[in-house]
Amino acid sequence: MALKSGLKDCITDVHGVQVGHTTLYEKINEKDTICTGVTAILPHPGNLFRQKVIAGCSVINGFGKTTGLVQLNELGLIESPIMLTNTLSIAPVMQGTLTYMLNRTEEIGDTTGTINLIVGECNDSYLNSIRLQAITPSHAIKAIESASNESSEEGAVGAGTGMQCFGYKGGIGTASRLIQVEDVIYTLGGLVVSNYGNRKQATFADWEHTGQETPDGSIMMILATDAPLSDRQLNRIAKRCAAGLGRTGSALDHGSGDIAIAFSTANQVSHDSKNHLMSAAYLRDDHPVMNQLFQAVVEVIESCVIHSLQKAKTTLGRSGHKVEKAPL
Amino acid sequence: MALKSGLKDCITDVHGVQVGHTTLYEKINEKDTICTGVTAILPHPGNLFRQKVIAGCSVINGFGKTTGLVQLNELGLIESPIMLTNTLSIAPVMQGTLTYMLNRTEEIGDTTGTINLIVGECNDSYLNSIRLQAITPSHAIKAIESASNESSEEGAVGAGTGMQCFGYKGGIGTASRLIQVEDVIYTLGGLVVSNYGNRKQATFADWEHTGQETPDGSIMMILATDAPLSDRQLNRIAKRCAAGLGRTGSALDHGSGDIAIAFSTANQVSHDSKNHLMSAAYLRDDHPVMNQLFQAVVEVIESCVIHSLQKAKTTLGRSGHKVEKAPL
Amino acid sequence: MALKSGLKDCITDVHGVQVGHTTLYEKINEKDTICTGVTAILPHPGNLFRQKVIAGCSVINGFGKTTGLVQLNELGLIESPIMLTNTLSIAPVMQGTLTYMLNRTEEIGDTTGTINLIVGECNDSYLNSIRLQAITPSHAIKAIESASNESSEEGAVGAGTGMQCFGYKGGIGTASRLIQVEDVIYTLGGLVVSNYGNRKQATFADWEHTGQETPDGSIMMILATDAPLSDRQLNRIAKRCAAGLGRTGSALDHGSGDIAIAFSTANQVSHDSKNHLMSAAYLRDDHPVMNQLFQAVVEVIESCVIHSLQKAKTTLGRSGHKVEKAPL
Amino acid sequence: MALKSGLKDCITDVHGVQVGHTTLYEKINEKDTICTGVTAILPHPGNLFRQKVIAGCSVINGFGKTTGLVQLNELGLIESPIMLTNTLSIAPVMQGTLTYMLNRTEEIGDTTGTINLIVGECNDSYLNSIRLQAITPSHAIKAIESASNESSEEGAVGAGTGMQCFGYKGGIGTASRLIQVEDVIYTLGGLVVSNYGNRKQATFADWEHTGQETPDGSIMMILATDAPLSDRQLNRIAKRCAAGLGRTGSALDHGSGDIAIAFSTANQVSHDSKNHLMSAAYLRDDHPVMNQLFQAVVEVIESCVIHSLQKAKTTLGRSGHKVEKAPL
Repeated sequence: MALKSGLKDCITDVHGVQVGHTTLYEKINEKDTICTGVTAILPHPGNLFRQKVIAGCSVINGFGKTTGLVQLNELGLIESPIMLTNTLSIAPVMQGTLTYMLNRTEEIGDTTGTINLIVGECNDSYLNSIRLQAITPSHAIKAIESASNESSEEGAVGAGTGMQCFGYKGGIGTASRLIQVEDVIYTLGGLVVSNYGNRKQATFADWEHTGQETPDGSIMMILATDAPLSDRQLNRIAKRCAAGLGRTGSALDHGSGDIAIAFSTANQVSHDSKNHLMSAAYLRDDHPVMNQLFQAVVEVIESCVIHSLQKAKTTLGRSGHKVEKAPL
Repeated sequence: MALKSGLKDCITDVHGVQVGHTTLYEKINEKDTICTGVTAILPHPGNLFRQKVIAGCSVINGFGKTTGLVQLNELGLIESPIMLTNTLSIAPVMQGTLTYMLNRTEEIGDTTGTINLIVGECNDSYLNSIRLQAITPSHAIKAIESASNESSEEGAVGAGTGMQCFGYKGGIGTASRLIQVEDVIYTLGGLVVSNYGNRKQATFADWEHTGQETPDGSIMMILATDAPLSDRQLNRIAKRCAAGLGRTGSALDHGSGDIAIAFSTANQVSHDSKNHLMSAAYLRDDHPVMNQLFQAVVEVIESCVIHSLQKAKTTLGRSGHKVEKAPL
Repeated sequence: MALKSGLKDCITDVHGVQVGHTTLYEKINEKDTICTGVTAILPHPGNLFRQKVIAGCSVINGFGKTTGLVQLNELGLIESPIMLTNTLSIAPVMQGTLTYMLNRTEEIGDTTGTINLIVGECNDSYLNSIRLQAITPSHAIKAIESASNESSEEGAVGAGTGMQCFGYKGGIGTASRLIQVEDVIYTLGGLVVSNYGNRKQATFADWEHTGQETPDGSIMMILATDAPLSDRQLNRIAKRCAAGLGRTGSALDHGSGDIAIAFSTANQVSHDSKNHLMSAAYLRDDHPVMNQLFQAVVEVIESCVIHSLQKAKTTLGRSGHKVEKAPL
Repeated sequence: MALKSGLKDCITDVHGVQVGHTTLYEKINEKDTICTGVTAILPHPGNLFRQKVIAGCSVINGFGKTTGLVQLNELGLIESPIMLTNTLSIAPVMQGTLTYMLNRTEEIGDTTGTINLIVGECNDSYLNSIRLQAITPSHAIKAIESASNESSEEGAVGAGTGMQCFGYKGGIGTASRLIQVEDVIYTLGGLVVSNYGNRKQATFADWEHTGQETPDGSIMMILATDAPLSDRQLNRIAKRCAAGLGRTGSALDHGSGDIAIAFSTANQVSHDSKNHLMSAAYLRDDHPVMNQLFQAVVEVIESCVIHSLQKAKTTLGRSGHKVEKAPL
C-alpha cells in the first residue's frame, strides 16, 4: 500500500523547508581523522523566532543528549533551526545557532525573552576523532546559511559524515510521502541521521553478522509536514517513528538515542502578539487522513534509513577504522 | 538472529505465571451474538496484594481504556491479576477481580488501604453484541480461578473470542524467548489480544485488501520475565512493543489502543513491611543482556500476533458478520 | 492579589457546567456504617459523547485509581460525565455511567466505537465500611440525573460524604474565580473531594497534631473554564493544582492520589464529523491572561479545600470512628 | 512541624556534595553591565563519569532550556557536575564542563561512549547584558574547580548574580533538613537559583506591588540526599518542589522554567562494569520516612527561596536597572 513519494523524495518537498550541511573530513595523522559535520533543517526561510512553527517530539529511547525538548514539550513550538551534529559538538553548534539568531533578532535577551535551541546528535566516534572537537560555531552557521529547498545530499554528508548503520556506512537519509484528502494533497517529509543497528538485525536485507561489535548507535529523525496539526497531534506523529524503526529491524537498543521531532508548517505562531487569542484549523484525529499520515511516517522513516545506506560510501576513519558501503 | 523459544512458547514459560480464560459464545437471534470473554494473567500463584511484582508499562497509542496505569506508573508495582476483556465490560471485570481479591485479603479497606486493579480491553463490537454487556463479575472470577501454568489456549478464546486482526480472525496469542547470560537463562514471555490492522498493512503475508473497512482496533500486550528488572527498566521493556508492532506492519492507527504492560517475577515486594529498606538486584542497563531482552520483546510481540492468527478460527458474529481465519 | 469569585463561588459559575450528588449514610450495626456517595460533574447539559469537550489532566501523585486518563491524554477530550466516588466503588459507578450513556446514545458499540469513562476516587474507609460496597450503578445514574447548574452542596455530601482532610471532616468543596482580559470575562471553577493531610501540615490554621495517625488520603480536583484552551494548555492548568495544594500545606504524601482534571467548555468537538478539518480559537500562552488563569487555579484549589472543611459537619462512621468539623 | 536543619543548613550537609561559584560583575559602560555567573554542584568529589549517581527530575513548568534531561529520564543517572548559569550561556558552560571531564576521563569518546551534561539556566537579562555572552568555558571550569563542601555562598553569587525573585534581588539559596528513621539520620539538601515571581504573589511577606512588570522568571532547584532512593523515587522527590513553590506564592507562571533535579549519593553506579547484575537497597515507598522526605523537600525549597532573598544585596545592572534587596 506504499504511498506516493513527493517530487524530490526529500524533506524539502514540504513547502518552505530547507536543509543545509557542513561536512568535515580530514586525515590528521595515523591515529586521528576528522570525519564529522553539521546539518541544519529550517522549517521555513523566515525568522523562526518571530514566526514559530508548531511541533511535537517523541523520545523513543532516551540515551541521547538532544537539547531543547523541555520547552518544545511545554509550548509545542520550534523557534530556531533544528541542528544535528556529533555527540560532543552540541555546545559549538548551539553557540553558532545562537549567534546566528541573535545577529538577526536584536530583541532576544533585550526587550523580550530568550530563545530555545534544538540540537540533536549521534555518536560518530568509531570513525571520527570526536575528542578533537573539530566542529566550531562557524560550521553551524555555515550549515544554516547554506540551507536550500533543493534535494538534500544524502549519506556521508553533514551530521551523517561519520555515522554507521547496521554495521555499514550510514548517515543522512531523506524521503517524503503524499497524502490526499478530498482535493487537498498534504506532504510529509523526513530526514534522519542513521547510526544504529547491527547487520543481523536488518529486516530489509540478508546480511551475515561479522562478529565485529560496534557500539549501540542512535538515530535522529526529523519530520516535516504541511498538514495542519496541533502539538498533540505532532507528538503522535513523532511517536510513529518507533514503528518505522521496528520495520527496519531495530529493537531500540539500550545505547541508542532514538529521538523524533515533528513540525507542521501550516499554522505559524508569531512571537509576542498583542492579541490574547489565536485561531487555527487542524485535522480531525478521527478522520482517515490521520491514519494515512501515520502510515506515511512509517514509510518515510524506513525509506530514510535505506536511502542513508544507499547513498553512503565506504569511509576510512580514525585508527584505521573503515566502514563499508552496504551491499543493497 | 532469532532467539530460542521456551518449552511451551508461551508466557507461562516464565516460572509462576498463570493464564486463565472465560469464553462466551452464543447466538441469541438473527441480530445478536455474544462472542466475547475474559482473560486473566497471574504474575504468581500467591496473594498478589500481599506479594506484589515490579512492573512498568507503555501507552504506545492511548485510544484505550486500560485501568490501573496511574498507580502502576507511580509505584512500579502490580498487586492484582491482570485482566483483559472487551471495551464495555471493564466494570464487571473490575468488580469480579475486586471481589476475588477482597474475599482472600480481609485487610484491604479495613486495616490497610486500597487495591489497584488492572483491566485492559479491546473492542470486539464487529462480532460481539457488545451493548448487551454479557460479561458479569463471575466470568472474571472464573477466568482467575481457572488460571494455570500450562500452555495457554490461543486464538478465539477468552478476551480474544471476538477480536480481529489485519481483517482476519485474531485474538489471544502467546510466545516466549530465552536469553542466556553467563550460565543464567532468563525467560521473556508475552501474551496479546490482537485486534488491529488491515490486510494491506501486514508485512508477514501478502494479502489483498478487500475494500471492507473495519474500524481501528487495538492490541493489549502483556510481557512477563524472570529477569530482575526495575520499574524503569520494565518501562523500557514495554516501550519496545512499539518496534514489534512496527515489524508486523502496524502504523499505530489512531483508533487503536496499543498498550503494553511488563512485569518481572524476580524481586517481589511485600505489602506493608515494617522495614524501611528493601534490597534487590537488577540487571545493569549497559550489559549486552539488556539488548538481548529488547530483541526478545520484538520477537515475542511479532510471534504473539502471528500465533493469534494461526490459532484462530473462522467466526460468525452479530448481524451476520463473519471473520475468516487468516490464510497463513 | 485575590481575584474575584464568580456569583456562586462554585464550579457551576462556568456556564453549562452541572453538578449532582448521591449521598449514602446509614448505620448498619455497631461495626458497620455506610458513609459514602457519588458526585457527577457534567461539562455541559447535552450529550457529551456526541459533543465532547477539550480537556487535560495532571497526575500530581499517582497513588490513585482514576480511570480514563489514558485516552484523555492521547486525545485531549472528555466524552462522558466526570464521576467521583470511593476507591472500591469505581466499577459500579463506571457501570452506571456506561448504562446512562448507552441508553442515550444508541450508536456506541453499534455503528461507532466505544466510550471513555472517567471515574475518580478517594479512600473513605476510615468512616465508611468500604468493603460492603454499598454503591450501585443506580447511585451513579441518580447523581448524573440530579445534576444542575445551581450552587453545589459542599462538605459531607456525594463523593465527599466519608472523606477527611487535615484530620477533620472534609469532602466536597467548590469555588470559582473571574479573569478579565480586554472586555471579556472568563470564569475558572473548581470542585474537589478533599481527603488528605494531617493537622500539623495545614498552613491556613494553627492546629495541634493529635497523635492519631490517619492514613494518607487523596484529593480529586476538577477544574472547568469557559476560556478557550487547547488540551496542552489544559494540562498546564491541571498541573498548577500542585501549587495550590502546596499552599494549603500538603507535601503530596506517598499514599495520596492527587489528581487534577481540567476542561474547557469553549471549543466543543463533535463525534465523527465528515470534515477532515476543525477550527478553533485559543488563548495565546504568552498573553498575561494565562498567568491570571494560573493564579486562579491556585486560589480556586486553596478555596475549594477550605470550603470543604467549612461546610462539613462532624460525622460518625464505622467502628465508632468519628471525624470532627474543623475549627475554622 | 518544621524538621531540623543540618549543621550548615546547606546542600553540602549531604556528605560528599560540593558547590562552587564563578561570579562576573563589571560595569562596561552606561548601557551594558556584566552581572552573571556559573554555579557547579558536584554530587561527589570523585570522577562522576566513572562513578555515577542515581537521579530523577521534574519539569514543573517547561519554559526552560535545561540540557541533559532526556538521558537522565531514560537511565536515572547523573554522570557529570550539575551546572547552572544564564539562559544564553548554556553552550560555553556545557563546553567547559565537557573539557573538564574529557581531560580527566580519557576513555570518553575513545574506547567507551559519550557523556551526558546537565546545564540549567535562568534568564538574568534584566540586570545582565546577556547578549554580550560574557561567560566562557573557563568560567565553568573555574566553578567546578572551586567547588568545596563548605557552606555555599548565597544571594548574588555564581549563577544567581543577576537574578531577581518576587521583584527583589534573588539568586542562590540553599538549605537542608534532617530525617530520622530508627537510629539512622538522613539529610536532604537543596540549592536553588531563584528568579521568579512578583511582589504581590509572595505568601511569606506582605509586599505592595510596584506596578513595574518584570518578565516571568524561572527557578532551578537541585536536591541532594544520602537517603537510598531509586530513580523513580527521586522523580517523586523532585516533583514535590511544585508544592514548595506553591507555598511561597508561586502560580508557576507561563514564562518560568521551574525545573527540579534530585540525586542520591547512596547507591553509586560504576561505568561499564563487567557484571550483569547490580544490587542496591532502597527506602520502601510506604514507610513513613518517605513522607518525611517529601515534607523535607517542601521545607527546603521554601527555605532556599527565602535564603536567596535574605542573603542577596541591592544590585545595579544594565541600562540603569536596579533591583533592591528584599525587606525581610
